[in-house]
Amino acid sequence: MSVDDEEHPEAPPAGGGPIGVFDSGIGGLTVVAALRQLLPREHIFYLGDTARVPYGGKSRRTIERYSVEIGGLLLAEHAKMIVVACNTASALALPRMKQVFKCPVLGVIASGAAAACRGTRNQRIGVIGTRATIASRAYEHAIHEILPDARVFAAACPLLVPLIEEGMFEDPITDSVLKRYLEPLVYEGIDTLVLGCTHYPLLREAISQSVGEAVALVDSAQNCATAVHEALEQANLAARPGTVGRLEVALTDSTEGFLRLAEEALDLDIGDVRIRAVQAGE
Amino acid sequence: MSVDDEEHPEAPPAGGGPIGVFDSGIGGLTVVAALRQLLPREHIFYLGDTARVPYGGKSRRTIERYSVEIGGLLLAEHAKMIVVACNTASALALPRMKQVFKCPVLGVIASGAAAACRGTRNQRIGVIGTRATIASRAYEHAIHEILPDARVFAAACPLLVPLIEEGMFEDPITDSVLKRYLEPLVYEGIDTLVLGCTHYPLLREAISQSVGEAVALVDSAQNCATAVHEALEQANLAARPGTVGRLEVALTDSTEGFLRLAEEALDLDIGDVRIRAVQAGE
Repeated sequence: MSVDDEEHPEAPPAGGGPIGVFDSGIGGLTVVAALRQLLPREHIFYLGDTARVPYGGKSRRTIERYSVEIGGLLLAEHAKMIVVACNTASALALPRMKQVFKCPVLGVIASGAAAACRGTRNQRIGVIGTRATIASRAYEHAIHEILPDARVFAAACPLLVPLIEEGMFEDPITDSVLKRYLEPLVYEGIDTLVLGCTHYPLLREAISQSVGEAVALVDSAQNCATAVHEALEQANLAARPGTVGRLEVALTDSTEGFLRLAEEALDLDIGDVRIRAVQAGE
Repeated sequence: MSVDDEEHPEAPPAGGGPIGVFDSGIGGLTVVAALRQLLPREHIFYLGDTARVPYGGKSRRTIERYSVEIGGLLLAEHAKMIVVACNTASALALPRMKQVFKCPVLGVIASGAAAACRGTRNQRIGVIGTRATIASRAYEHAIHEILPDARVFAAACPLLVPLIEEGMFEDPITDSVLKRYLEPLVYEGIDTLVLGCTHYPLLREAISQSVGEAVALVDSAQNCATAVHEALEQANLAARPGTVGRLEVALTDSTEGFLRLAEEALDLDIGDVRIRAVQAGE
């Protein structure tokens, strides 16, 4: 055993720690599904802050505090990279997390905005998300860094997460709510719509029907997985060939229904779920 | 100054402390409105745990932990009585709070159940509430203590709070959701419906239209205020004649829209709102 080994007796080998994925609840499992498909060698440790879900209506200060706490719990699991699989936390807490943590920290906004910019032909882009995400204008800023002349039409859709958590994927009530939120964006002639919340891919079909097939949907989950792949390669952190990736799921509060719903809808093998308390002092 | 005074130099005079009212969010302001009307002399200190709202989908253990923390903050404000103006916390955390705190602790379940039992003629009672409230069967148990033969028909209505927080009081979408939840209860022939969530009185008209005028609605807020009045008299804690009650509102996270919505809908003079962090360690 070398001196170096003794100094870090518990550190996993380079590339051996999991990717730490965090979301306010379990919507971020859509990102996990995309990661599992693209990077089957990678271990993933997912932590959903179900004791304090949702973040979408809360203040920047509170969202920053929660995000840094959860990041700390992921690092305690030897995470080699933190993926903020929550648009609200990505929109509001990413700068703070990057200040605090040495490991790479990736959100879902930059990759989603880049995909929207690659996809649009008429530079009229719609964005839907939680109140906090939309109020932060994070997508707008990220899109304008790439396409300064693009027109961005944003709509907060606070009822969609509750509808999804009720499993109302195909339902006339969901269709009415979607119509209410999306009609003004369609009226503006968008050709691309960013699904700016990790829950929304579960409503992809209903959303597509509501906006029409001519509007391309940009899915945070897929684009985030691609960005994680690139970041792992760049930082030389990818898992060794031959590794079979494990998925571990932990939640800050026990959650019945929706976890199993997501497991089924996303074809994920979640298995046992750990419950842990979160120290939320300041 | 007597020795007794010196021992408690900061304690307010008997009956001088505020009634401490607590809710997971700001739905409990419906209880505050009822208290202000019935007990205009009483000071009220309201604390809404908006940093962790909603409680309705969380576990008993987490709800107990949050409730005891918030109770501690109310006692730090010299609350002479704690009113748990949240059906979920009343249903799950009241026994624990009564174990922990010496002052009287009142919830909304017992008074609501008693009112339903006084009102029903056919002993068929409907109850609506959050997932956690309904799963706890707290109303059912409380009703059966008074009317052992009553039939209780309960429905969890997780979409109603989000709709109310969007201000969608008169809206065809809300009407469709209500119809979905309430039709099975009407089919069972209920003559009384307990609004088992402090948000629901804001939807009273739409609910009444949905179930028909023949079904009597039992409002947690009104009945809780009456129970508080009785408990104050019984414990000799009522404010002195001539006092003009103040209302103070504090929240664990800043909350824009719905607070002002509630202020207007309830005709409350809320004024400045204090924001405070909550120590949520275990």
